[in-house]
Amino acid sequence: MPPSALLTDLYELNMAASYLRRGMRQEATFSLFVRTLPPTRGFLVSAGLEPCLEFLETFDFPERDLDYLEDVLNFPRDVVDAFAGLRFQGEVWAVPEGRIVHAGEPLLEITAPIAVAQLVEPFLLNQITFHTTIASKAARCVIAADGRDVVDFALRRTQGLEAAMTVARVSSIVGFSSTSNVEAARQLGLKVAGTMAHSYIESFPTEAEAFRTFARDFPERTTFLVDTYDTLNGVRTAIQVIQELGLSDNLGIRIDSGDLGQLSRAAREILDDAGLHEVRIFVSGGLDEIEVDRLVRSGAPIDAFGVGTRVGVSADAPSLDSAYKLVEYDARPMMKLSSQKSTSPGRKQVFRGPDGDTIGLRDEALPAESEPLLVPVMTDGRRTGPHRTLETARSLFHADLERLPEPMKVIERPDQHVPRVSDALLQLTHEARSDALKRAAIP
Amino acid sequence: MPPSALLTDLYELNMAASYLRRGMRQEATFSLFVRTLPPTRGFLVSAGLEPCLEFLETFDFPERDLDYLEDVLNFPRDVVDAFAGLRFQGEVWAVPEGRIVHAGEPLLEITAPIAVAQLVEPFLLNQITFHTTIASKAARCVIAADGRDVVDFALRRTQGLEAAMTVARVSSIVGFSSTSNVEAARQLGLKVAGTMAHSYIESFPTEAEAFRTFARDFPERTTFLVDTYDTLNGVRTAIQVIQELGLSDNLGIRIDSGDLGQLSRAAREILDDAGLHEVRIFVSGGLDEIEVDRLVRSGAPIDAFGVGTRVGVSADAPSLDSAYKLVEYDARPMMKLSSQKSTSPGRKQVFRGPDGDTIGLRDEALPAESEPLLVPVMTDGRRTGPHRTLETARSLFHADLERLPEPMKVIERPDQHVPRVSDALLQLTHEARSDALKRAAIP
Repeated sequence: MPPSALLTDLYELNMAASYLRRGMRQEATFSLFVRTLPPTRGFLVSAGLEPCLEFLETFDFPERDLDYLEDVLNFPRDVVDAFAGLRFQGEVWAVPEGRIVHAGEPLLEITAPIAVAQLVEPFLLNQITFHTTIASKAARCVIAADGRDVVDFALRRTQGLEAAMTVARVSSIVGFSSTSNVEAARQLGLKVAGTMAHSYIESFPTEAEAFRTFARDFPERTTFLVDTYDTLNGVRTAIQVIQELGLSDNLGIRIDSGDLGQLSRAAREILDDAGLHEVRIFVSGGLDEIEVDRLVRSGAPIDAFGVGTRVGVSADAPSLDSAYKLVEYDARPMMKLSSQKSTSPGRKQVFRGPDGDTIGLRDEALPAESEPLLVPVMTDGRRTGPHRTLETARSLFHADLERLPEPMKVIERPDQHVPRVSDALLQLTHEARSDALKRAAIP
Repeated sequence: MPPSALLTDLYELNMAASYLRRGMRQEATFSLFVRTLPPTRGFLVSAGLEPCLEFLETFDFPERDLDYLEDVLNFPRDVVDAFAGLRFQGEVWAVPEGRIVHAGEPLLEITAPIAVAQLVEPFLLNQITFHTTIASKAARCVIAADGRDVVDFALRRTQGLEAAMTVARVSSIVGFSSTSNVEAARQLGLKVAGTMAHSYIESFPTEAEAFRTFARDFPERTTFLVDTYDTLNGVRTAIQVIQELGLSDNLGIRIDSGDLGQLSRAAREILDDAGLHEVRIFVSGGLDEIEVDRLVRSGAPIDAFGVGTRVGVSADAPSLDSAYKLVEYDARPMMKLSSQKSTSPGRKQVFRGPDGDTIGLRDEALPAESEPLLVPVMTDGRRTGPHRTLETARSLFHADLERLPEPMKVIERPDQHVPRVSDALLQLTHEARSDALKRAAIP
């Protein structure tokens, strides 16, 4: 079942009702962007567009919703009838998923009759904000791991199960090698990873017996969880079982607690002494990009990191300062003046050049050597092309990351890029401000 | 469609496969609890049980899932056949939703053949952790508001749409008066609240014209958003429109930016001077319980608070240190020794007495004047009683909050309650430790 059009705030329905009643069907353009980045982010990774397009494609009010609006919320019949006919038949420009973006850059711009463009605000903001939050956090883990595998372990502690699916999806865009989440792997075609828990070890009379049993069941992919009782004893027990059963393929040990740097070094030494150079060391337990970075820089002999809670909720920055602002109405550029939250008017484009990004107007000329980030993704309510695959998003991210200046990739205290503003946009902002001030005049 | 049994981690499937292959159908009890509270929490509010029970009731592997396990994950046919027959036919004891709980207290204990009890871990942990996270955060907002209305505005910035539904649901348990989320209100029978956005004001030639139009459309419930251009001018414009149209019912103004304390005072004065004592002042914009507390203690004349992002993601503590641990297997108490994360063995009960909580064994005698927090909610895979309503959860929360000592309700630096441990549980822990140490012996 497609997501309900009632996944919106009451005030959106109020406004839409008011617009529809008086036949205000003028086109509005809303721009969705992140005002400022959290101090711990050097860049963002655009994500969440795909569920937004699916929502817009199927947007309508089924009978059940209309009944609720009329019977419970007491919207008048003429308004309910108007809601019944609403579809999204507008235009969407957006930054494709996987691209690296910066503060103030529109991720999505939607143009449609104002009632519909207003109604879809909460859904679009929710999805773009959350997916981008997690993609950006996960990207830092991949950078910190510096070529080592990173695996999504977040399912058990994300903010709901849909969130877990999102974490698996967007972390795969930025280069996670696999996920522990089987449903996500099935739905999205991801690689899945996992071994055993402490409870498995405990359910056998001895650790050796547990290891032996597991290895017999999964001889082609055994990773021994070695820290249930004593980590280095556990490593020795694993070695004993590996030798006893003559195992050789895809072997690993996992350490899930304690001083991971020190334990991984000691474990590597014990494994190497036994000639088991091919046994990989996998670590997990409360990791985030800061800790992964620390371990990698310390030279710890770790082959793969499992990251869960802190990445799955983006613990240091669990949301972004995103906004969805009216920038044009009935062909007139619009801007909000109040307080610190003023916005800039007009339909926009981001021009990426060799020396950084410029936010300008959508219809101004492309500066030399620059590339536009926003592309048309829907016209007349229909997609302009086929669904973009996760593979496409991965390629875009990979290419953008290659070109991203090093100071923005730094894990601790990264630089942030402040996009320039084009002359044309500055001029329009100046004009729109005068216009808005006029309308704000005391009656 | 019920949630998929594949919403689990691969390692759970590995372990279950291994157990099933060798006919290990012994009963295991797993205990789900929160080890320690974030420093900014004086208590937790138990939530998330209802979706867990729904999941357990419908737990099975449809053909599609079995095909994936066999064809993609290469589980052998005998294992896949064993998965096909799995249902949850076990027992669940749990703390009902809405009850106040403390560190280390089991929120849920599940007893079932070990394969199934293991497979459901990620789902149960995910839902109980997240719902409890948000219920606990939202409860602090209600305490801070000290009798004033608090409204859920989180939909646009929660970590996904399911998360938004959860926020609406659990915030209603702890006393939020309404939500802006229309779909949540419809599904859960909540009161819904909302007025207009800045874009509405901007889409009319003047603020006065926007106010007038909205008031004509919603004469029985008009709240004027006054801060699009200049907040106090906006208040005066609202007064003009109220007087011009002779409005009198359910009137309010909303201030969404700036110094909310100062602006609410000035707005109140202007409204009172116009004789409009009944017009309510509603504030919003980046609020959390700290800010609500500050505003209330400063005596700001605010009637209602809209809280969004920071509460909807529990920004200061977006997850909890929850665990799902094997505490009994095949009638033998179990415990994990490793590192700092040792657990205590056996099926448990929490006894709440006049001088605090005691964590003990499920079958020990109830201490005098105490009440057990965990109750049986499923036996033989079926609920022991009808679905509990949100109203029941609200009553439980309200009663527990009344009895909670004041120092745990404080917003800044709350005290935390450390439950006592019963003698019987201490004794069992001692015995189980010896047993675990024996099994940890170097082979």
